[in-house]
Amino acid sequence: MKHKIGILGFGTVGQGISEILLDKKEYLKKKYGFKFDIVAVADFIFGNVYNPKGLNIPQLLKEAKAGKKFTQDVVDWDNKKIIQKSNTTVWCELTYTDLNTGGPAIDHVKTALKSGKHVITSNKGPAALFYPEMKKLADKNNIKFMIEGTVVAGTPVINLTEGPLAGCEISKIRGILNGTTNYMLTEMEKGMSYEDVLKVAQEKGYAEADPTGDVEGYDARGKVTILANIVMGAGIKIADVACKGITGIKPKDIETAKKQNKRWKLIGSVEKKAGKITASVGPEMIDLGHPLAGVMGAINALTFTTDLLGDVTIVGPGAGKIETGFAILTDLLAIHRNS
Amino acid sequence: MKHKIGILGFGTVGQGISEILLDKKEYLKKKYGFKFDIVAVADFIFGNVYNPKGLNIPQLLKEAKAGKKFTQDVVDWDNKKIIQKSNTTVWCELTYTDLNTGGPAIDHVKTALKSGKHVITSNKGPAALFYPEMKKLADKNNIKFMIEGTVVAGTPVINLTEGPLAGCEISKIRGILNGTTNYMLTEMEKGMSYEDVLKVAQEKGYAEADPTGDVEGYDARGKVTILANIVMGAGIKIADVACKGITGIKPKDIETAKKQNKRWKLIGSVEKKAGKITASVGPEMIDLGHPLAGVMGAINALTFTTDLLGDVTIVGPGAGKIETGFAILTDLLAIHRNS
Repeated sequence: MKHKIGILGFGTVGQGISEILLDKKEYLKKKYGFKFDIVAVADFIFGNVYNPKGLNIPQLLKEAKAGKKFTQDVVDWDNKKIIQKSNTTVWCELTYTDLNTGGPAIDHVKTALKSGKHVITSNKGPAALFYPEMKKLADKNNIKFMIEGTVVAGTPVINLTEGPLAGCEISKIRGILNGTTNYMLTEMEKGMSYEDVLKVAQEKGYAEADPTGDVEGYDARGKVTILANIVMGAGIKIADVACKGITGIKPKDIETAKKQNKRWKLIGSVEKKAGKITASVGPEMIDLGHPLAGVMGAINALTFTTDLLGDVTIVGPGAGKIETGFAILTDLLAIHRNS
Repeated sequence: MKHKIGILGFGTVGQGISEILLDKKEYLKKKYGFKFDIVAVADFIFGNVYNPKGLNIPQLLKEAKAGKKFTQDVVDWDNKKIIQKSNTTVWCELTYTDLNTGGPAIDHVKTALKSGKHVITSNKGPAALFYPEMKKLADKNNIKFMIEGTVVAGTPVINLTEGPLAGCEISKIRGILNGTTNYMLTEMEKGMSYEDVLKVAQEKGYAEADPTGDVEGYDARGKVTILANIVMGAGIKIADVACKGITGIKPKDIETAKKQNKRWKLIGSVEKKAGKITASVGPEMIDLGHPLAGVMGAINALTFTTDLLGDVTIVGPGAGKIETGFAILTDLLAIHRNS
C-alpha cells in the first residue's frame, strides 16, 4: 500500500520530516517497501493545501522558508474537514505545544483517530495530558497513536521499550534528559563558572534568552512525566514530580565530586517501589564507572533497570529539526511494518 | 491466537527461555495479549516430546536438571518429523553452534521455514553462514527468521537497528562485544597484571580454562561478522575480519592511555567507506569523553553512526542464561506484534 500522509503544522519539525522524506524517498522504497505521498498540509500561517495524488513538497518548502502563504492546491477546508475528508491514512501532528490544555493538537489527534487514521506526534501536549485515552481510542479503531518524538526525539526510547525491550519489566528509569544543562555541567567541570557557561550556551543557541526552562529542570520534568506515564503507566501529573535544577551548583561542588571519582549530572528519574511510582528531577553525583557519567556535552541518555537484563542504557542526541524528523519517520516505518 | 512453541535443544538457553515463559505467563498475557503453549521439545540427550495441548514444562525442567531422559509425552519422531508434523507455529533453535557447517541447526531452520513456521535462534551458525538465504526463505513464506540472541544477547541490537533506528542509514558500528576482555581491561587499569587478572577472570567464570577465544578477539570477530552482514549487508566471511586481541597490552600501555585521558578497549568495528565495507577487531585507546570509554566490567556496548542522528550508543549485558532467554522472548513478542 501507499501511505497517504497529512501534516499538521509546517514549522521546523513539519519541514524537517518533509525534507527527510523527500531525500530518502528511493531508499525507503528499496529498503522497506515504504511508498508514500504527502497529500495534505495544514498550517495556520501558510494555509491548508490538499492534493489526493500528492502535493508539490519542494514548492511548499520554498514558500514556507520565504515566509509566504502556500499558492498551489489551496483548499478552504478547516483542519477538521481536511483531516476527515482527505484520502490521508496517517496524520503527523506537529503544531505548537500547550501543556495546560493540549489544544488545539488534542482536537486534531481525536478527529484523526476517530476517522480511522493513524496519528504520529512530537507534541508533548496530547502525550503528557491524554496518552491513555488516545491510545485506547487508537486500539479500538485498530490504528496507531505514536509519540516517539515527544521525548528526547533523537534517542528512540519509547520504541525501544515497546519493541526491543518488550518482555522486560522496567522498575526504574534514570536519565540525562536535557542537553543544555548537560553541556553546561560538562563545561563547568573544565573550570568555567555557571554564569560564564550560561552565556556561552546562550551564544551557541543551546540555551534560550530566558534559560529557566532548562536550568531549573522544568524541561526534564515534562519528559520525566511522559516517560513515567507511558513506559511505566504511572498516571502522574507534572506537579507530582519533585524538581530541582542546576543553578545551585558551585565550583566547590564540582571539586567535591571529582575527589570522590564522581561527576554532577541533572538526573530525571522514575522508580517503582512496592507498587508505587515516584518521579523526580535533580542534580546528582554519579559514579564515573556508570554509563551515564560518560555522557558529555549536549546529548541525552537513559538507563532502564529491568528484571531480565539489569541495566540497559541508550545514549543519543536530543531534539532538533532532523532528530525530531527522524522520530516521526521511525514511527511512520513502525506503522508500515504493521500494515 | 495462541502461539504453539517448539524448542530445539534443551540446554542452558532452552531451559532459560522455558523458565522465563513460565514465570511471565500471566504478565505476557495481560500486557501484550501474548498466549502460548510449549508443545514440542527436541533434545538429543533428553529425547523428543510432543503434546499438541502443551507439555508439562516444570516436569521437563526437573528431569533435565537431574540429567534424566524425558518421561512424559515421548514421541519416536525425529527432529524433521517433529518440526513438520507438530502443531507448532514457531520454533526456537537453541542447539549447539557449528561455525564451520552450521549443522545440524541449519537443517532445523530450513525445515521449519519451509513448513511455514517462524524460527527464532540464538545459534551463531545459521546466522553467520546462511542469514541472507534463510531471511529470503522466511520472507517468501511470509514468516519470520529472528536472530536477536546471536549477538550480545542481553543488549537488543538487531531489533534496535531494524525497529527504533529504522530509517537511519548506518555507516559505522563500533562496539565492546566481549565482556570478559572488558572486565580484564577494567581490572588492569586498577593495577593488576594481565596474568593475574586472567586468573581472577577464570576463577569468576568469566574466562574459560583456555581463554584464547576471548583474549585473542575471536569471539568478538564472530559477532562483528554477523553485525556486518545483518545490519550493513556486507556479505563478508569471518576470515575477512582483521583480528588482534588484548594479550599484548602491558601496564605501560595502560599508563600511556591514562596520560592522554584515554582508556584501552577491545573494539569490534564495521565501517562503510565509498561503498566498501570493512570490519576488524583490535584494542584501541578511546577518549574518556566517548560513551564507550565509560563501559566498565563484563558488559557490552555498541555505537551506531547514522546519517540522521549521528552517534547512538546502547549499553547492556552480554550473553547468559537469562539474557539469551530474554533475546528469544523479545523475538517471540516481535512475531506476536506482527501476527
